[in-house]
Amino acid sequence: MIPKDHPRYKSLILRERLVEGYNMGVTALQGLIAHGRGEMFDYILGEKSHNFALKAERAGVALMLISKRPVISVNGNTAVLVPKELAELSKILNAPLEVNIFHFSKERVCKIKSYLERFGAEVLANCDAELKGIRHARRIVDKRGIYIADTVLVPLEDGDRCEILKKRYGKKVIAIDLNPLSRTAMKADITIVDNVVRAIPNMIKFAKELKKKDRKELVEIVKSYDNRKILAKAIETVRDNLTNKIKNLNLKDPCTF
Amino acid sequence: MIPKDHPRYKSLILRERLVEGYNMGVTALQGLIAHGRGEMFDYILGEKSHNFALKAERAGVALMLISKRPVISVNGNTAVLVPKELAELSKILNAPLEVNIFHFSKERVCKIKSYLERFGAEVLANCDAELKGIRHARRIVDKRGIYIADTVLVPLEDGDRCEILKKRYGKKVIAIDLNPLSRTAMKADITIVDNVVRAIPNMIKFAKELKKKDRKELVEIVKSYDNRKILAKAIETVRDNLTNKIKNLNLKDPCTF
Repeated sequence: MIPKDHPRYKSLILRERLVEGYNMGVTALQGLIAHGRGEMFDYILGEKSHNFALKAERAGVALMLISKRPVISVNGNTAVLVPKELAELSKILNAPLEVNIFHFSKERVCKIKSYLERFGAEVLANCDAELKGIRHARRIVDKRGIYIADTVLVPLEDGDRCEILKKRYGKKVIAIDLNPLSRTAMKADITIVDNVVRAIPNMIKFAKELKKKDRKELVEIVKSYDNRKILAKAIETVRDNLTNKIKNLNLKDPCTF
Repeated sequence: MIPKDHPRYKSLILRERLVEGYNMGVTALQGLIAHGRGEMFDYILGEKSHNFALKAERAGVALMLISKRPVISVNGNTAVLVPKELAELSKILNAPLEVNIFHFSKERVCKIKSYLERFGAEVLANCDAELKGIRHARRIVDKRGIYIADTVLVPLEDGDRCEILKKRYGKKVIAIDLNPLSRTAMKADITIVDNVVRAIPNMIKFAKELKKKDRKELVEIVKSYDNRKILAKAIETVRDNLTNKIKNLNLKDPCTF
């Protein structure tokens, strides 16, 4: 048991959830290592939703709301980290969830689908269409979902698919990725550099607010959004946080032997 | 099978070893996540032993050699990553290994112990004493080992225990941690920001060299060591390597809506 007052409690609980996910057959072993890599960037970012993240989350929600067929792509990690929240966001945005995984098996797709359905979500997982230009399993999609979507929200994404969705299929891509240097982060239309466990709840709040606005206002939010600036800010923040850590080191007591 | 010419061969082999460790009951699944986080820091550091690491490794060995009762703490990840090397370092330094894990079970402790013994190591794992001030399982130690040690080498450590070992028990702590920002890194007397798979072999080399020196020289090495400078260098290197990555990006292609 992890004591609640452990300074890394939140982070350790997420690890526990992924381990449970693995035991349920929802998360891949590789997903555990991938989570660790994200953890590192979150650590450097101070484990909070910065302004650049909030702006991207708000613009992302606006884009989803003005889209005709928005879809939320879900993999094993996202499914176990924020199942309830994904179901809620999906309902508010009127955007179905679709299971899309890199380490593919029909069995795991079904497990993810039924796990999400427990939280009341509508989940597409027919695996009856293929995206051209991708060789790995992320090409396998649902005819009613990503295949015909105009906008796809992709938390914890594979850079390859992000590029194909955009360039070949002309879809808008909103990515959630803690690594602002990743190919996904670079290729997406809107890049949310934030932990999914904060990003999805933030997006629920923005969705509730923006649903009341008229289309013109939403279009304005999307048009005035500049992803290059947001990315630059995120990368700058990584760099500045590291510089601040160095400055604060000098305040510490020297080690004495 | 991972082809030997794969550009990520070394890194992928380490992952395989951790997965094997999991299948043997030695590594915890949570350990895979922790490894992923370390991997990312190592990636940014260029996967090599920098000068700041070599200096800390040398000072760490010197401190172990002048200590009365040095102990090397081992968890599941370290055990599968460098079992042979830990056994060798332990012998040269005359410092026993002690199993100490966060995700505790008597069974896993025994498995780690017997795995290390296969490589000829002397391993303490009686779990017959408790460190005060820690609520989680890392408090459980061996009466003959960490409990009475004056210096503890802790590869891949928990920040809590590091602090208690130092502040409450007055022990010297040498940490190996790829994250120079971690609480462990900040709290240790000597912080080795390096991958254990390079750090332990480096320390073996230093131990062979320093064993020939007299005590006065070893004390001098330890006294002239400044952990703040070493940490600052490590963080600077992370920052500069990231900054260089940013320079190489081309954030052209504005996103258009």
